[in-house]
Amino acid sequence: MPPVPIGIIVCSDRAALGAYEDRGGPAVEAYLRSVLATPWRPSLSIVRDERKAIAATIVRLADVEGCPLILTTGGTGPALRDVTPEATLDVCDRQLHGFAEAMRTASLAEVPTAILSRQLAAIRSSSLVINLPGKPAAIKTCLDAVFAAVPYCIDLIGGPRLDTDPDVCAAFRPKS
Amino acid sequence: MPPVPIGIIVCSDRAALGAYEDRGGPAVEAYLRSVLATPWRPSLSIVRDERKAIAATIVRLADVEGCPLILTTGGTGPALRDVTPEATLDVCDRQLHGFAEAMRTASLAEVPTAILSRQLAAIRSSSLVINLPGKPAAIKTCLDAVFAAVPYCIDLIGGPRLDTDPDVCAAFRPKS
Amino acid sequence: MPPVPIGIIVCSDRAALGAYEDRGGPAVEAYLRSVLATPWRPSLSIVRDERKAIAATIVRLADVEGCPLILTTGGTGPALRDVTPEATLDVCDRQLHGFAEAMRTASLAEVPTAILSRQLAAIRSSSLVINLPGKPAAIKTCLDAVFAAVPYCIDLIGGPRLDTDPDVCAAFRPKS
Repeated sequence: MPPVPIGIIVCSDRAALGAYEDRGGPAVEAYLRSVLATPWRPSLSIVRDERKAIAATIVRLADVEGCPLILTTGGTGPALRDVTPEATLDVCDRQLHGFAEAMRTASLAEVPTAILSRQLAAIRSSSLVINLPGKPAAIKTCLDAVFAAVPYCIDLIGGPRLDTDPDVCAAFRPKS
Repeated sequence: MPPVPIGIIVCSDRAALGAYEDRGGPAVEAYLRSVLATPWRPSLSIVRDERKAIAATIVRLADVEGCPLILTTGGTGPALRDVTPEATLDVCDRQLHGFAEAMRTASLAEVPTAILSRQLAAIRSSSLVINLPGKPAAIKTCLDAVFAAVPYCIDLIGGPRLDTDPDVCAAFRPKS
Repeated sequence: MPPVPIGIIVCSDRAALGAYEDRGGPAVEAYLRSVLATPWRPSLSIVRDERKAIAATIVRLADVEGCPLILTTGGTGPALRDVTPEATLDVCDRQLHGFAEAMRTASLAEVPTAILSRQLAAIRSSSLVINLPGKPAAIKTCLDAVFAAVPYCIDLIGGPRLDTDPDVCAAFRPKS
């Protein structure tokens, strides 16, 4: 089995222009490295905060590269240039509101401005797309809140089996 | 007063084909039997996981049979054949996000995969439609989380008065 | 600096007809008076529960009067005449689901019927619009649940700086 490709999309004007050293992408990759027991490889893209560019990147990672999991970082706030949630919905079929609720609830225990996040999760065919914040600490908070449900979600949408390191996160699969 | 008709829709390919003994429908009916003090009668339909069939059943139960409450079970997950939430929104006017949030929060205290549920609640004219999971234990968790608000909701949308057994669930009606 | 205009919209058929002394508007104004340290002035409108009238009032307060914050009270329930959320979405660009979740969660700790509220928050250009319930006690519960994030939200959408009385509510602005 070749390693499972996992998409990481950094949505940031400044990072895309090289004006800024992105910390979101490395934080997402470090989290995946700690949590996944199944062999995988990152497919990283850094794109500007442009709705069409982000949407096209999701489509490529899902349809061409076959990533069962695509994590975006950045662009989820209320500002005009924050368009990651819109771009995600543009190319996904169905939304999973429970991810957004759980990530915001966990973030809200840390900062009251967590309610400003418009991050969401949605499915494109056999790919699960999850929007994450841009800050490393907030990325970990959000992934900790939802990752136990990610492998079973990918089972249900027809993706490959992913196993986790149970000391980091116990992936849950209901018996039946 | 004739008994109030309450719709129960089992959304399941396997149950509709008779390949499987459905446990969701009986669990919903048992819950209603324990909680409702007002005379009522179930109107049960078992339908395949087809968006149009589920939507048409909701319309019939609401508009023809006059059910003020319609409970669906099954078809709320992320898989391709799970279409109950889409079918519900196809024929309803307004969504009540608070029901979905409360049901997911209660379920999440039991299993981390609760965030995968896309279940929702919405109103069609004078009927309240609530999507429930397929498993009996999860059905009870969800109904326990929201049922206290169901009778007042039905008051507000012009349905008949429903009373509950206060030892099972204390229906809440604000004074005003 | 002239005082910052803040919009308050009372959505109520009875109040608009003068058949009823509205208590929502004064409760919103009293809350703002206690929480804001920055000079401000209320711009109050009382409108009927008509979708077009409410939407037009939001547009006027945002575009003509330049209110960075617009608070509505009333019209968020499941009844047919409750149309404030629809009117808000008609004239706003992006929704902030975290506000609605936090307000419902706080209200749910007080009354089980909090899940019936369809209140939401959304942005129109540089204005943040938040739907509130009609009852004074519920208004305070909701504003207490979200106000710490309001000033930073208005910063992010390009509005004026608002400061709060830290003894009432500590506005949070992340360092970065």
